[in-house]
Amino acid sequence: MKILKGCPATSQDDYQLNVTSIIKNAARNYGTQSLVVMRPDGATFTSNYSEEYERVKRLANALGKVGISPGDRVGVLDWNTNRHYELYFGIPGIGAVLLQMNMRLTAKELSYIGNHSGARLIFVDESLIKVAEAISSDLKSVIGYVIMTDGKLADIETSLKPIYSYEDLLKDAEAEVNWPMIDERSAYAACYTSGTTGKPKGVYYSHRNIYLHSLQVGLSYEFTDRDSLLLLTPMFHAMGWGFPQISALVGAKLALAGRYSLEDFGPIIKLMENEKISFVGGATIIFMAMLEYIKKMDKKPDFSGVRLLSGASEPPLAMIKAYNELTGADVHQAWGATETTPFVTVNRLKPALKDKLTQEEMWKYKSMHGYILPGIDLKIVDDEGSEMPHDGKSVGEILVRGPWITGSYFNAPGTESQFTEDGYWKSGDVGMINPEGYLKMVDRVKDLIKSGGEWISSVDMENEIMRHPAVLEATVIGLPHPKWEERPVAFVILKDGYRESVTKDDILVHLSELFSKWQLPDDIKFVDEIPKTSVGKFDKKRLKEEYKNIFRKGR
Amino acid sequence: MKILKGCPATSQDDYQLNVTSIIKNAARNYGTQSLVVMRPDGATFTSNYSEEYERVKRLANALGKVGISPGDRVGVLDWNTNRHYELYFGIPGIGAVLLQMNMRLTAKELSYIGNHSGARLIFVDESLIKVAEAISSDLKSVIGYVIMTDGKLADIETSLKPIYSYEDLLKDAEAEVNWPMIDERSAYAACYTSGTTGKPKGVYYSHRNIYLHSLQVGLSYEFTDRDSLLLLTPMFHAMGWGFPQISALVGAKLALAGRYSLEDFGPIIKLMENEKISFVGGATIIFMAMLEYIKKMDKKPDFSGVRLLSGASEPPLAMIKAYNELTGADVHQAWGATETTPFVTVNRLKPALKDKLTQEEMWKYKSMHGYILPGIDLKIVDDEGSEMPHDGKSVGEILVRGPWITGSYFNAPGTESQFTEDGYWKSGDVGMINPEGYLKMVDRVKDLIKSGGEWISSVDMENEIMRHPAVLEATVIGLPHPKWEERPVAFVILKDGYRESVTKDDILVHLSELFSKWQLPDDIKFVDEIPKTSVGKFDKKRLKEEYKNIFRKGR
Repeated sequence: MKILKGCPATSQDDYQLNVTSIIKNAARNYGTQSLVVMRPDGATFTSNYSEEYERVKRLANALGKVGISPGDRVGVLDWNTNRHYELYFGIPGIGAVLLQMNMRLTAKELSYIGNHSGARLIFVDESLIKVAEAISSDLKSVIGYVIMTDGKLADIETSLKPIYSYEDLLKDAEAEVNWPMIDERSAYAACYTSGTTGKPKGVYYSHRNIYLHSLQVGLSYEFTDRDSLLLLTPMFHAMGWGFPQISALVGAKLALAGRYSLEDFGPIIKLMENEKISFVGGATIIFMAMLEYIKKMDKKPDFSGVRLLSGASEPPLAMIKAYNELTGADVHQAWGATETTPFVTVNRLKPALKDKLTQEEMWKYKSMHGYILPGIDLKIVDDEGSEMPHDGKSVGEILVRGPWITGSYFNAPGTESQFTEDGYWKSGDVGMINPEGYLKMVDRVKDLIKSGGEWISSVDMENEIMRHPAVLEATVIGLPHPKWEERPVAFVILKDGYRESVTKDDILVHLSELFSKWQLPDDIKFVDEIPKTSVGKFDKKRLKEEYKNIFRKGR
Repeated sequence: MKILKGCPATSQDDYQLNVTSIIKNAARNYGTQSLVVMRPDGATFTSNYSEEYERVKRLANALGKVGISPGDRVGVLDWNTNRHYELYFGIPGIGAVLLQMNMRLTAKELSYIGNHSGARLIFVDESLIKVAEAISSDLKSVIGYVIMTDGKLADIETSLKPIYSYEDLLKDAEAEVNWPMIDERSAYAACYTSGTTGKPKGVYYSHRNIYLHSLQVGLSYEFTDRDSLLLLTPMFHAMGWGFPQISALVGAKLALAGRYSLEDFGPIIKLMENEKISFVGGATIIFMAMLEYIKKMDKKPDFSGVRLLSGASEPPLAMIKAYNELTGADVHQAWGATETTPFVTVNRLKPALKDKLTQEEMWKYKSMHGYILPGIDLKIVDDEGSEMPHDGKSVGEILVRGPWITGSYFNAPGTESQFTEDGYWKSGDVGMINPEGYLKMVDRVKDLIKSGGEWISSVDMENEIMRHPAVLEATVIGLPHPKWEERPVAFVILKDGYRESVTKDDILVHLSELFSKWQLPDDIKFVDEIPKTSVGKFDKKRLKEEYKNIFRKGR
């Protein structure tokens, strides 16, 4: 990107955007605002910005004592807890980098991440000590582990060493700190993509990146100090989608769900009611599981006015409608990725549209991914990289650039091809944009099914199958075919009570309402489980590998 | 400011914050949203972001044709019009600097500004040609004038030369532009402070400054795409307080009041009703005049839910209450200056306070200037520069720093003393901060009245006098006194119908409710007019000069 210099300004442009200032301001302006944390047993406890800021300051002072310097990477293995929240501000506050270690990755992936980043210290929640132990002998640069527990360090049985107690470190540290002004281009935190191909790749978010993302997303979601946000999204995914920082920026209440059970959504629903939650961020599979729970409740919860941001994968329209009918909640989606911090679009209905759309058209808008945020350049391009028109029909790979988009992967030679010469990140997602500026992500480039020179969206087909009342989960993949290049095959989990009665033909008839005959899957496999990746997405790579020969064998 | 470098990030930190992207996005996402402009005759016309963006692009292309290059300063002499709006984006869009030329300044001041900045070209509204003519022979670097008129250039009689027609330039220019990426630290626009002492001083706002201010103020005011903003504040004052940029950023409707009459607020009130205005930015003296108009209306307008931001000087509590009672509008204030873009605080009532304050306490909060915006460092200091506590009592000079605060004045040797070594701008305002973080600006350092070692706030006393039902306007100054150092003297304009009946004693008795005996003014002068500066503030300097000897003479 060529940069044009104009006339010098007199503004304080050296003043750096530091994420630390966000929590500092929250304590200054919203000291008594609550941070609510739910424990695994469903009980909650409440802290506030003032108390949290004091703990952040103590943490910052403690880090120096255990040998951490500016620029060091500091690993975190934790659920959504207040300690994790403190690490969000304390580690970057001294110029070190919070390194997210997703406990659902394999030991091989985790130790790769620990070594690739050169992690010096790891904060481990007591419940995850086993995860740390499994990789500790492989970690080359780690000088110690900080155990996050309510109990005594002496009672912890572990092979990790040396170990420190988080609470003791805080207790012994000073509560005052003279924050450094950190170069805004320095890394604030690192997340590694759990990429289904190759090694994990590091996205190192700068302070500037996170700060600007917080401002714009706060503005686009219209968050205020009357909001009450519940974060079901793990804080290790794209830095909790930005919500820990954004809620502090606007002075909203933040509720963290810790480690919760997908079997019993009772505690989460109670938390939402008690804390008057107005906005929830979570993965679609979580909201789908919650919906099943709600369907069985005699008295449905009242979520009117509550916004549910359903991410990671596309929320089926059937689910969106069901939430609306049963609870009054408004489910919506967005588009983004670890590489984009993550928000690139938000799907709100612009006032000018609201006035002119029918109810049915509004639902159609609900199934899109939304309009592009100010400050972000986004285009869809064909195979040659030429920009496609915004006509709601032309489909191309989504390319994106802007202040909160990654420009490279950390120390990852060979990944340069994922970026264009003019600075766009190639998302690997395929989508279209309508004349109103709404993006509809159609598929992953690699999941788009190419059949006889035409394409079929695996995502659209999955969503349509999931609209069938008997279907719990479904995924569709393209499998190599000698004649057509690829043909679609669906994997379907039926709900209890339907397993005997529903046939492949029922599903095909259902799909025929929306899809042409040539697009219909060649096979529908009823299964008990669909493999998922560590981040809860359907593991299509694994399925494709397992079933790659079914057409070749002439089955 | 020492800057600490940490670990490199992978974010696209080279991607520059350019204000141009704000209007580009408004056209992308809110093309049909209205820009409403009121003409001097009260008639309105409506444009939209899509049309405006096309005109901005044509303007950008036209600038090159008349010899303007990146870095050049381009003067503007205009009211609040759509053309002025286009200049806000078109001039900085090519990397040039929009130089504001306040038509209310003296010819001497204006030509100083034109020459100090090295202005190359000046855009002049047809109605202001005389102002430009008065200085044109003094301007050393100007190569031409662009006349903004709906008529033909040939019909314009002027000594200015060469002259161009704004509309012709646009018509002849291409509608497509490949925007450069401008260094975000380059100047976007320049405003000169009309400082009551010395020469005008240039504040050159960077693109970064304006962009960050827009994001944070948009967030703090909770502006949305359902808002409808009316800008009464001249666009040449601190870049229209940021509202032209902010409304584009959030997709709000923007209404510009052009040149309107203070004698007849009918057209403005009609505009507010027709366009469902939800927020108005304007100077306190304007709102006071509007209130007088409303008081005489048989049927009061319904402004419930409308926020009136009353700036430039403190809105008297009597006025705030009257608006609330008569129209339902919520008048509030903020604190800032040309040097601060201008927002440093906003006075909204935090939810935690709302619950616990009595109605009377709420009014008290209304008379404060609000809490400090995230991202801004603000402190109050004593004469030695030591920070004062936030106890709601300690008074000190307000010092401020942050990304949208000026760090110097443009090419102004000798002004360095207005900044501290650690980068704070010394505002010259005196204030206090309460434990909830609300700033109360008490006075200008120079207007604070020092009497017998104690101080008296001239602003507080003015507001209290203006609460008297017979008073239209009032100002209070400290005049040199042989025994007490200074003593207060009030200048009061009575409303029609009260001139015969109200006495000095009436005012003193009224003041006694709030002020101690020793604080009461030594004299109250009933006058027909109070001199005002070019920006509409009471010209206390002139009054002090005129009356400096009244106590010395032993009067």
